[in-house]
Amino acid sequence: VTATVGVDVGGTKLLALAVDEEGRTIAHRRVPSAQGFDAVVADVVAAIEGLAAETGAVAACLGIAGMVDPEGTVAFAPNIPGLRAAPVGAALRKRLPIPVLVDNDANVAAVGEAAYGAATGREHVLLVTIGTGIGGGLVLGGRVYRGAHGYGGEIGHFTVDATGPMCACGERGHWEAIASGSALDRMARELVAAGGGHAVVAAAGGDRTAVDGTHVALAAHLGDAEARALLERLADGIALGMAGLCNILDPECVVVSGGLVEMGNLLLDPVRRRLAVHLEGGAFRPEIPVEPAALGERAGAVGAAVLARQLAG
Amino acid sequence: VTATVGVDVGGTKLLALAVDEEGRTIAHRRVPSAQGFDAVVADVVAAIEGLAAETGAVAACLGIAGMVDPEGTVAFAPNIPGLRAAPVGAALRKRLPIPVLVDNDANVAAVGEAAYGAATGREHVLLVTIGTGIGGGLVLGGRVYRGAHGYGGEIGHFTVDATGPMCACGERGHWEAIASGSALDRMARELVAAGGGHAVVAAAGGDRTAVDGTHVALAAHLGDAEARALLERLADGIALGMAGLCNILDPECVVVSGGLVEMGNLLLDPVRRRLAVHLEGGAFRPEIPVEPAALGERAGAVGAAVLARQLAG
Repeated sequence: VTATVGVDVGGTKLLALAVDEEGRTIAHRRVPSAQGFDAVVADVVAAIEGLAAETGAVAACLGIAGMVDPEGTVAFAPNIPGLRAAPVGAALRKRLPIPVLVDNDANVAAVGEAAYGAATGREHVLLVTIGTGIGGGLVLGGRVYRGAHGYGGEIGHFTVDATGPMCACGERGHWEAIASGSALDRMARELVAAGGGHAVVAAAGGDRTAVDGTHVALAAHLGDAEARALLERLADGIALGMAGLCNILDPECVVVSGGLVEMGNLLLDPVRRRLAVHLEGGAFRPEIPVEPAALGERAGAVGAAVLARQLAG
Repeated sequence: VTATVGVDVGGTKLLALAVDEEGRTIAHRRVPSAQGFDAVVADVVAAIEGLAAETGAVAACLGIAGMVDPEGTVAFAPNIPGLRAAPVGAALRKRLPIPVLVDNDANVAAVGEAAYGAATGREHVLLVTIGTGIGGGLVLGGRVYRGAHGYGGEIGHFTVDATGPMCACGERGHWEAIASGSALDRMARELVAAGGGHAVVAAAGGDRTAVDGTHVALAAHLGDAEARALLERLADGIALGMAGLCNILDPECVVVSGGLVEMGNLLLDPVRRRLAVHLEGGAFRPEIPVEPAALGERAGAVGAAVLARQLAG
């Protein structure tokens, strides 16, 4: 059995998997994300070297949360401090004895879900990763879509609410700013600041200053009406951007991954309802199913390992 | 020489061209757009029959402003009253002696511009048609992109300003509602209603009730500051949606067609300036050129004729 290594570096953790030809994970590494170019490269090299020694893996691919060009240079990575115009691909190729690719983290997650996850067998897949921010991966016509310069799929960064809250990237009202985990944190703080959200504060152990989106999720799960109303508002924001992307791309399905998906249908059911409302010509076209990712946090690393196979031949 | 016929039906006119294998127009028809299924089909049949008789054209393709499925059924055409779930393809195939395709009007325009126009030789092209509404055509990886069900490329219909003006489709704040000819008409009326826009009213021959976007363009061309400010606002709205699409799709170039492009750089220069501001990671990526369509109002019909060639073999 020939294994390949897939590595996923996000804002909080590095996950590396050695994956066999049937998509099974045969070994793994998991460490907190480093900051800065040298530290990130050192951690990725250590993970790939360790897994290659352990499993005999013949090629590797890194998915990283940022804009990656075809050479593997990370132009811009808003959630990983210290990575700007960073030649990650060149550094890895110099230090590793096996061939290695670098791609965007959401691209590799889309490949993972289309190969072994919620979109198995689909040709046109929109993957939306909703965590601290919003990322995206596109499989169009059966292939990962990277755009002309490798920067395609930055789906969190289009304006949805021109007079809305600021985005982490510095623009106003991007989808990410109204529909991510950070947006839910902000809504929770606003609710509490306005004197509401008693059940949400209770979920935070009574500490008003500690309230964030996870406490909204908990209170909503327990049936609190204010928390459910916040989730409905978040779901409408998610559906608003999702409908735009569906109008533009007309995918067969939408796969949703990332931390917020742990809420399951408590969040996804209102998203589906609002998507049907916002979709252009919704009454005249097939429904576009919205499904949670099946591979969970492993999607990116599995997809990276799948992409690494093209180097293994 | 084998000719094919391309027909473009928009909200205001029907243009039909017989085009030879080098992309040259050898005959044409032009009539105002009809309303309703029977009248639209009758006009298209008459145009194709007439041009086929005149030139010996062996196949035809219709580009129409609406959501078109692979059978040529127009699911939804917000700018052509009376077309809903309309089996235009089936009706044309029944009544015409030559094979005929039906596609979205902006898809065919993108094919035209990529074959013989401003994007000749480009593999990743975003075509934005700004007229009464906003349509779009995508050439991705060298091929027209239609999505999973044929409804891809509805780029005018994603929310850009969630609390903004209503769109013709019934949703609030779509790109089309803030960045199209109709949006400029509305801005012009609002300016005059607020007691401003003297040069704009003058451009309308002094008739305040007749003011529309064309008078803004004329006054701006003559240097009027209020009219120029309106164009800057329109340009920022255009750039806002364009930046989102560039973040999602990462095209090599953007080609802008439609009535508003007649303003030329008076409109496109501020669009380019604002696009650079709104583009994600703009300082770290190649500039994305914004060019006016080279084929003008002929782009759609020329592209339709190019697509018809695949039926002519």
